Amino acid sequence: MKRTLLAVFTLGFVLIFGSPAIAETIDSLPSWNDGKPKQSIIKFVTKVTEASSPDFVPPAERIAVFDNDGTLWAEQPMYFQLFFALDRIKVLAPQHPEWKEKEPFASLLKDNVEDILAGGEDAIFEIIMATHSGDTTEEFEKIVRDWMSTAKHPTTKRLFTEMVYQPMLELLAYLRANGFKTFIVSGGGIEFMRPLTEEIYGIPPEQVVGSSIKTKFEIQDGKPVLVRLPELNFLNDNEGKLVAINQHIGRRPIAAFGNSDGDLQMMQWTSGADRLGFALYIHHTDADREWAYDRKSSIGGLDKGLDEAQVMGWTVVDMKQDWKVIYPHEKE
Amino acid sequence: MKRTLLAVFTLGFVLIFGSPAIAETIDSLPSWNDGKPKQSIIKFVTKVTEASSPDFVPPAERIAVFDNDGTLWAEQPMYFQLFFALDRIKVLAPQHPEWKEKEPFASLLKDNVEDILAGGEDAIFEIIMATHSGDTTEEFEKIVRDWMSTAKHPTTKRLFTEMVYQPMLELLAYLRANGFKTFIVSGGGIEFMRPLTEEIYGIPPEQVVGSSIKTKFEIQDGKPVLVRLPELNFLNDNEGKLVAINQHIGRRPIAAFGNSDGDLQMMQWTSGADRLGFALYIHHTDADREWAYDRKSSIGGLDKGLDEAQVMGWTVVDMKQDWKVIYPHEKE
Repeated sequence: MKRTLLAVFTLGFVLIFGSPAIAETIDSLPSWNDGKPKQSIIKFVTKVTEASSPDFVPPAERIAVFDNDGTLWAEQPMYFQLFFALDRIKVLAPQHPEWKEKEPFASLLKDNVEDILAGGEDAIFEIIMATHSGDTTEEFEKIVRDWMSTAKHPTTKRLFTEMVYQPMLELLAYLRANGFKTFIVSGGGIEFMRPLTEEIYGIPPEQVVGSSIKTKFEIQDGKPVLVRLPELNFLNDNEGKLVAINQHIGRRPIAAFGNSDGDLQMMQWTSGADRLGFALYIHHTDADREWAYDRKSSIGGLDKGLDEAQVMGWTVVDMKQDWKVIYPHEKE
Repeated sequence: MKRTLLAVFTLGFVLIFGSPAIAETIDSLPSWNDGKPKQSIIKFVTKVTEASSPDFVPPAERIAVFDNDGTLWAEQPMYFQLFFALDRIKVLAPQHPEWKEKEPFASLLKDNVEDILAGGEDAIFEIIMATHSGDTTEEFEKIVRDWMSTAKHPTTKRLFTEMVYQPMLELLAYLRANGFKTFIVSGGGIEFMRPLTEEIYGIPPEQVVGSSIKTKFEIQDGKPVLVRLPELNFLNDNEGKLVAINQHIGRRPIAAFGNSDGDLQMMQWTSGADRLGFALYIHHTDADREWAYDRKSSIGGLDKGLDEAQVMGWTVVDMKQDWKVIYPHEKE
């Protein structure tokens, strides 16, 4: 009974005075095993939030950026956006009889996905353009929402939105509770992510940065709309991530989270400022609960980044060792 | 004494229950005369914030977009960014001996500003590129801050940052107090605005959308930086404003504020959704306290917009009639 009273008193104290030190006694990262990554996260957050700390950062400048594929949700055996695109090809095929004879569509309609992926980036680019354009921005948003609410992953048989990483959801919430503003900075399509990010990550559309195609203003039935064009606007990867962060956010982040070489420059830029910066790589090491891949993977390859993390002393999460659970349903 | 107690009780009630109807009894827009614009603003805000209203909009979707030049601060006799560029030409001239012979720089160095403006958009574009590139993003931010803290307007002799519109500052604060997220969507340079918007408008850098030049990732002295290139990335005007809002914010605004034909499509898009949308034009009618200009002005021209506002029933602010004061210092 005494313990309960103390707990209530402590909680009340935290709610009123918001002391991060005391709040820490309630574990904000329960799905993280006690290890170096968890400790380094808490140490960093304490350093930038305690008013007396030499590394204190005002709340307005506490910008944290997260890659999406492989960092906040899974990305194997291929990016989830590609599953969406392949499903769209089948839906749109009746309107495109020419696809029966034309690659990469012909292979795809015969379910030869490997052949398409072997066609490399050009084939993938053509598929994305064919399936992501022609609609208004509002129509496309609805198409994405509908797909996300029904499509299932081929091996886990779960909704793609259920394949987010539970430890990262806790990390997002922990950072926000400590005054951070959390952004997604992903190579994925900005309008493919936005319909869902608020619901699954608590990140509103205006805090999502991604690749994009061009749009065009039109009046349709007397109403102004934006129509999506089959033309690349911006590819948000590698150095592009810095350009986009500068363009979109206008501040250098103090914390960056990624899992592939495409995140390397973002990490360097975040940790290379004159003030304290935090960079964390997720290393996919768990072939049983998720997937194990790094240096040689064509999806989410992590090679140079793994070496640079060593040199720079960045935090590296070993998924198998550091995470108690991977997906939210495992908690249940 | 009773009145005081009642006031304290009412304030306490408002603080605790946050009732917008009662909060209204404290005037949030004291620099606005009681007229149609003020009434239409309050009516709109009440409609979208009262939970029982058929036009209720959840806080996360309460996006308000503001043009900057001529809407939040003055823009005559030319855009303030152009004063900055002309001052920079003089600072940079010793490094560019060729400018003595080369237009538009030669005229400018002889203070023939009219000749340059007569040279039209091409001359202005050349001046902007010459003065806004070459530095890293962090160096440029400092240059802008330094200039803003010392440069004075030629006729008012005030700092440019003192030439913001007091009624608009109140409007920004009023909207935010009602759960709106306020964004700038301006034709001005995004990195020219960002260093100051938080301080002068309470709008953080990540909520500023503007025109931009390209940037390039480089390692300088072992540190990653972004260098500004003399190449246009995006011109944020007319239809471009919609493209940028979609790209940057990812939601259709429910309120738009502007003062020129360059804001017209943004107004149409905001007010043309299936749900309630609010569009407000500021009409510069006060030659004594500010400037009077509209249909034929080369800076901030308002012609088609004025007609469209009439047809669509948008709110038009007559600065002379509707605003008690223009600039903050007039309150003192």
